[in-house]
Amino acid sequence: MEPLHGPATYEHEPPRHWALKINSKEPFNAEPPACELVDSYITSVDMFYKRNHGPIPVLENYSLFRLKVGGLAPNHCSLSMDEIKQLPKHTVVATLQCAGNRRTAMSLSRKVKGVGWDISALGNGVWSGARLSDVLNMVGIPNYTKVSSCGGKHVEFVSVDKCKEENGGPYKGSIPLLQATSPDADVILAYEMNGEELNRDHGYPLRVVVPGVIGARSVKWLKSIDIIAEECQGFFMQKDYKMFPPSVTWDNINWGSRRPLMDFPIQCAICRPEDGAYLEEGSKVTVQGYALSGGGRGIERIDVSVDGGKTWIEAKLGQGLKSGHGYIPDDDDHRDKWAWVLWELSVQISSPTDILAKAVDSAANVQPESVESIWNLRGVLNNSWHKVHVNIIPKQLHSNL
Amino acid sequence: MEPLHGPATYEHEPPRHWALKINSKEPFNAEPPACELVDSYITSVDMFYKRNHGPIPVLENYSLFRLKVGGLAPNHCSLSMDEIKQLPKHTVVATLQCAGNRRTAMSLSRKVKGVGWDISALGNGVWSGARLSDVLNMVGIPNYTKVSSCGGKHVEFVSVDKCKEENGGPYKGSIPLLQATSPDADVILAYEMNGEELNRDHGYPLRVVVPGVIGARSVKWLKSIDIIAEECQGFFMQKDYKMFPPSVTWDNINWGSRRPLMDFPIQCAICRPEDGAYLEEGSKVTVQGYALSGGGRGIERIDVSVDGGKTWIEAKLGQGLKSGHGYIPDDDDHRDKWAWVLWELSVQISSPTDILAKAVDSAANVQPESVESIWNLRGVLNNSWHKVHVNIIPKQLHSNL
Repeated sequence: MEPLHGPATYEHEPPRHWALKINSKEPFNAEPPACELVDSYITSVDMFYKRNHGPIPVLENYSLFRLKVGGLAPNHCSLSMDEIKQLPKHTVVATLQCAGNRRTAMSLSRKVKGVGWDISALGNGVWSGARLSDVLNMVGIPNYTKVSSCGGKHVEFVSVDKCKEENGGPYKGSIPLLQATSPDADVILAYEMNGEELNRDHGYPLRVVVPGVIGARSVKWLKSIDIIAEECQGFFMQKDYKMFPPSVTWDNINWGSRRPLMDFPIQCAICRPEDGAYLEEGSKVTVQGYALSGGGRGIERIDVSVDGGKTWIEAKLGQGLKSGHGYIPDDDDHRDKWAWVLWELSVQISSPTDILAKAVDSAANVQPESVESIWNLRGVLNNSWHKVHVNIIPKQLHSNL
Repeated sequence: MEPLHGPATYEHEPPRHWALKINSKEPFNAEPPACELVDSYITSVDMFYKRNHGPIPVLENYSLFRLKVGGLAPNHCSLSMDEIKQLPKHTVVATLQCAGNRRTAMSLSRKVKGVGWDISALGNGVWSGARLSDVLNMVGIPNYTKVSSCGGKHVEFVSVDKCKEENGGPYKGSIPLLQATSPDADVILAYEMNGEELNRDHGYPLRVVVPGVIGARSVKWLKSIDIIAEECQGFFMQKDYKMFPPSVTWDNINWGSRRPLMDFPIQCAICRPEDGAYLEEGSKVTVQGYALSGGGRGIERIDVSVDGGKTWIEAKLGQGLKSGHGYIPDDDDHRDKWAWVLWELSVQISSPTDILAKAVDSAANVQPESVESIWNLRGVLNNSWHKVHVNIIPKQLHSNL
């Protein structure tokens, strides 16, 4: 039996936190309550969304495990976990977000296909491991290579899990070689999450973390890395995770006409109060949420409306890393380049209303007002203005409850 | 007298094409008719928008001109034009766009301050010159440097023109050191435009071209390049070209609260037919326009509506470089990474209607539906859905005209 392998059944699943909202049991797909997200700049491992396409792989023998690196690279190698841990350890704070985050709301306007995610299919983690660029150096590919000497232009990551969509084969994905070999793109082979050994749900013993890109490219339970000439031909690169216009249906879809999604767009959501909440009349409420953008673009500002969109107030950005996480290096002023921003705004709300939020990124990109204009049959990348409705309880009544 | 200097008056302006629409005469600010833009993938020098903040500088003595490079760099140097031309020549196809493009339409909803640009404050040029990274190597700064050994983090470009906003001093701007030293960011010191020597309006003898970034950072009539610790403190970095929310007015503005604009957001406009055009009933019309995004993000698709937004049809992307421009290197599949996309759609229009267009970039960013949500007092980065109204002339009547 292989030292790391993907079982065919769900008998070996790890334990999970009871508070997760399960969107699909087998494969296990779950997200935390939204309020958990804004309670901590770094999302705990337990509360980090779980996104799988098959049973969780099992590592039978840590010391026999080898990561294979090769393909079109000038040299090939195979690395044990100990060898990987001997490479310089690099730490990145990065928010991973499923391309399907906020899909449920997109389905309200017109039904889409896919796991029904609410607003919590994302989390902000501290990832430590070897730089992918250092590992590629070992097989003869220098930093900042766009095309390798043997014609390689992409780097493919292959898992060991068994996916239905791949006819029982493993999950795969790729990124451009230039991104993979640029140390400032911060792509890492992570063996730690939040300062602890990566757990099974998140890719133990080794996963890729590709910051600023949809979560689907951060392949877990990594088995091999190959330099390839063209982008990965796997299902999740070619027949999924692409963006279509609203006019495309399952009858006229042409998968080959679109590129695989990589960078995600500007996004933000309100995590507290939750949709449908009852607030006490005249009391002060702190509206809280997250905002993030792909490709290393920062958050410029977040606008919040508590009158259904008539007027807007700028939210206060959270303190981020200043809240103190000992294991995050302090000497890099771009250390939150790939991370979300938590924000809040204290307001008084005296009648039932819609609270709205929308963000602007450092490239001045904004979110679309309505979901209709970005509707797509796979329900990916819903980043329309987020709205929660709040009700008001008279003060008297509330104190009697 | 300095070999290159900025005159105090407008007596030495170069000749310009009569067809340009002049938005301000002194300093000279002008744009071409929109239809000129879609007639050629590469914008001719004559039809390229002109954006100035003072009189056009005069080069008195080509052989005495020196570009000074220094600041916090380990070494300093001064280069003649001949020395710059001896460095490897690099060619980039890049669209430059003024941050104020489409400002006039933003002013319709609520008045903004600034030169009134319609939709043609942009152009796609072929720029040739030395790589900025090669010049920085000469003063001891290696490629891909985030912080130089002497603490430099930005690269400042200083012109020789005389700007009112700088109290008669020169125009200035800066970009991050990492971008300046990354050869794949394609920042160049250009001495040629469209295969010919740069002309005076566009920065003769030497200008910076920073692809993917608002035009304001591509400083013309370059005199010196300095490595500096923090971003440039010039007027156009600190008191202009920043993005504010709609709620900020001239009474409550705090310039220090925002970062200077760099990458521009997804943008697109309809160049033909023009707003208010009369079309013959039942005739086929080819809607044409441009689309572009900042930061090297490509265009994923353009949606066009000929029924005021009820239904949308995908436009056909233009052939771009395939139309043949001998002076563009053919061996680089990213050679149009920084360039716009021209698009078109043939449709039959039988009654008066609004034609709308909106684009999606490779990071799935979309344009905002209305200008109100992005209104800002300086009228920058209006990238709301573009709309033109067309009228219909009965067939009979048209043939009588």
